[in-house]
Amino acid sequence: MADPNTRLPLNRQSVLDAHELIKPHIHYTPVLTNKTIDDIASTPQTADALKGTEWEGKEPAKPKIRLWFKCENLQRVGAFKVRGAFHALKRLEEAEGGVEAGHGEGGWRQKGVVTHSSGNHAQALALAARELGIPAHIVMPTISTPSKIAATKGYGANVRFSGSTSVEREAMVEEVIKETGARLVPPYDHPDIMAGQGTLGLELAEQVRQLQSEKGMGGQDSQGVKGLDAIITPCGGGGMLSGVALSCEGTGIRVFGAEPEFQGADDGRRGFEQGKRIESVKSLTIADGLRTPVGKIPWSVIFERGLVQGMFAVTEEQIRKAMRLVVERMKVVVEPSACVGLAAVLFHEGFRTWLEGEGGESGCDVGVVFSGGNVGVEALGRLFGEGVNGEEGERAEGKLGSDGVRVAENVAG
Amino acid sequence: MADPNTRLPLNRQSVLDAHELIKPHIHYTPVLTNKTIDDIASTPQTADALKGTEWEGKEPAKPKIRLWFKCENLQRVGAFKVRGAFHALKRLEEAEGGVEAGHGEGGWRQKGVVTHSSGNHAQALALAARELGIPAHIVMPTISTPSKIAATKGYGANVRFSGSTSVEREAMVEEVIKETGARLVPPYDHPDIMAGQGTLGLELAEQVRQLQSEKGMGGQDSQGVKGLDAIITPCGGGGMLSGVALSCEGTGIRVFGAEPEFQGADDGRRGFEQGKRIESVKSLTIADGLRTPVGKIPWSVIFERGLVQGMFAVTEEQIRKAMRLVVERMKVVVEPSACVGLAAVLFHEGFRTWLEGEGGESGCDVGVVFSGGNVGVEALGRLFGEGVNGEEGERAEGKLGSDGVRVAENVAG
Repeated sequence: MADPNTRLPLNRQSVLDAHELIKPHIHYTPVLTNKTIDDIASTPQTADALKGTEWEGKEPAKPKIRLWFKCENLQRVGAFKVRGAFHALKRLEEAEGGVEAGHGEGGWRQKGVVTHSSGNHAQALALAARELGIPAHIVMPTISTPSKIAATKGYGANVRFSGSTSVEREAMVEEVIKETGARLVPPYDHPDIMAGQGTLGLELAEQVRQLQSEKGMGGQDSQGVKGLDAIITPCGGGGMLSGVALSCEGTGIRVFGAEPEFQGADDGRRGFEQGKRIESVKSLTIADGLRTPVGKIPWSVIFERGLVQGMFAVTEEQIRKAMRLVVERMKVVVEPSACVGLAAVLFHEGFRTWLEGEGGESGCDVGVVFSGGNVGVEALGRLFGEGVNGEEGERAEGKLGSDGVRVAENVAG
Repeated sequence: MADPNTRLPLNRQSVLDAHELIKPHIHYTPVLTNKTIDDIASTPQTADALKGTEWEGKEPAKPKIRLWFKCENLQRVGAFKVRGAFHALKRLEEAEGGVEAGHGEGGWRQKGVVTHSSGNHAQALALAARELGIPAHIVMPTISTPSKIAATKGYGANVRFSGSTSVEREAMVEEVIKETGARLVPPYDHPDIMAGQGTLGLELAEQVRQLQSEKGMGGQDSQGVKGLDAIITPCGGGGMLSGVALSCEGTGIRVFGAEPEFQGADDGRRGFEQGKRIESVKSLTIADGLRTPVGKIPWSVIFERGLVQGMFAVTEEQIRKAMRLVVERMKVVVEPSACVGLAAVLFHEGFRTWLEGEGGESGCDVGVVFSGGNVGVEALGRLFGEGVNGEEGERAEGKLGSDGVRVAENVAG
């Protein structure tokens, strides 16, 4: 990684610069819309759905919502993580004297890069390193699923095994660094990574303006286009959320984070409540990309600088319902972690109340980030196998077909 | 339906005319490409994979293949069937004196339309009828899954129940016609339906030329673009296959059909062999949209006029493997019926041999139709649940991620 002294300033310009650097290496992923899901989101929840929450007994919110889905599940390696990985390596190249430098014996390129990850960051760094001609060492817990190990090796990385605790993993990273002189590329807690992930926010805002203009949806700005009112992204370590928040600085677009509440994975939300970062999390939420606490540098952007407006937590069942809608109605494959933003839009009454107030009669335009699509068919089977969802499975079954039509009752009901 | 005397001629112009009529009502669905799947398709099968087939012991074909996937799974109601349904109703309107006619008491519009179907045609006709302000009566077997009944009712159709044999279903259709005077809209065996479904072939050919031109892929024609060499579509009743064949008449694009071989669902292929149409099929293939025999009128185009070059049958396991690749690599949801074309490209040595010969060194551009995406998450679970695929499940697990990279060994192996 770049020397901390040459660190990027944490502002929108850094995200714009990052975009220029990584553009040739990433997909400009599509933004999808879906009338059925807009209709469901724009239908008030039932009184029943609010039972046991702080909104019990209150009139359910009546937001009017238009959703714009940024499909990073269709990104290279199936997740947004390649943005940060390419940016970190391109910045490293710059800091070390450009593309031509560091090739010789003992040069930084020969020494390579290292990280520990058993998820999308591992594959993203492996791909980026291979494409830029840099060796990558990936530390993975011995207990990682064979498929993920195979996939990471498939991108040409040198996989090293460790125990599964963070202490053991970090010790192995230290060992690799001592052995090889490789540079550490952390998964989220670094300005280069944050700025890289934030580039999806730039694209999303621009794509929505483009699509609104094509659809003749009038608005308030000088070009007669409304743009987005808000963006909501999943939040694990906070690299993407903080990067997107930076990408929206000064644009008027409000940024929100979504987390699973299961076993305390909503550390970001709790941190907002307590006024300080929660430093450790131990959760086995189905949203397996979101089991980590928010990192220090992301937190400084998200909370301390106030660039994120709010954090919302959703239940495992709400994540599953959102995921079912995406798979069955939009016909795209998303991993559970990618669905927490949509789940918050559909089921979090606090967010829905804000959206109603913000959008009023003319409605709210909300960007929702589908962060990744790396879920195997077996895992889909486990998530939605017969009997797993009981009655809900039955109720939602009436929702096949993908026309813009409410077929069965409100899933929020 | 239009009077047989005013029937469309079965030629390319009828498909072009159909496209003009239905364009305002259908999605212009995207064409996707995928480097990983191209690489797999362009890798010869192993000798082992050919064991027990007529190609055993022969040198496996070495085709070079570029695939272009027409995503009718992203079409309205999640399947191509809306094309034929809208076209049949628009033609009926024309024949009856246009949009303004037939509204009065006893007019044809009041009497409505009727069909029997428990699949995508039911929902397609229900949607098209509602959008054009015509009542729709859909005869469904009592044993249809509740979800499909709910979905069809959700599009506003009047669902009538019957026994499950074709005799019982047709008897109920007759009853509805007697009662209501509704017009029959068959699922595939009619020129209006065939021409409607064929419109996807026009779009696919045009989109590929556009994409090739953007990508600077040179070619032979006056505009310097190569276009498609071949299109392969699933074949059940043959409405789509015959329509696509008409859409390609005189263009030089070869058209092929793919079928499941399970329990004789490959009636089209067997018909080619025997030189005559097979009139009945009883198969429970997982490709549930392809359990019907090819209809008379489609057969006249497909076989008698020689507009389809060949028919290929694939196994249930090959369908599942193709489906896994699409879901895990392309991150789009397809139903099993939609995957038989890709399965033929990947696994049918006869087709692969043809593709090698046709494409040679410069390779073959093949359009593959994803006919629909109506599969619930529970059904995905059943298709790919743990233990269902045994060793294959394990082997293919290494294929997560969606970059253009071969991670594990050839799935064809």
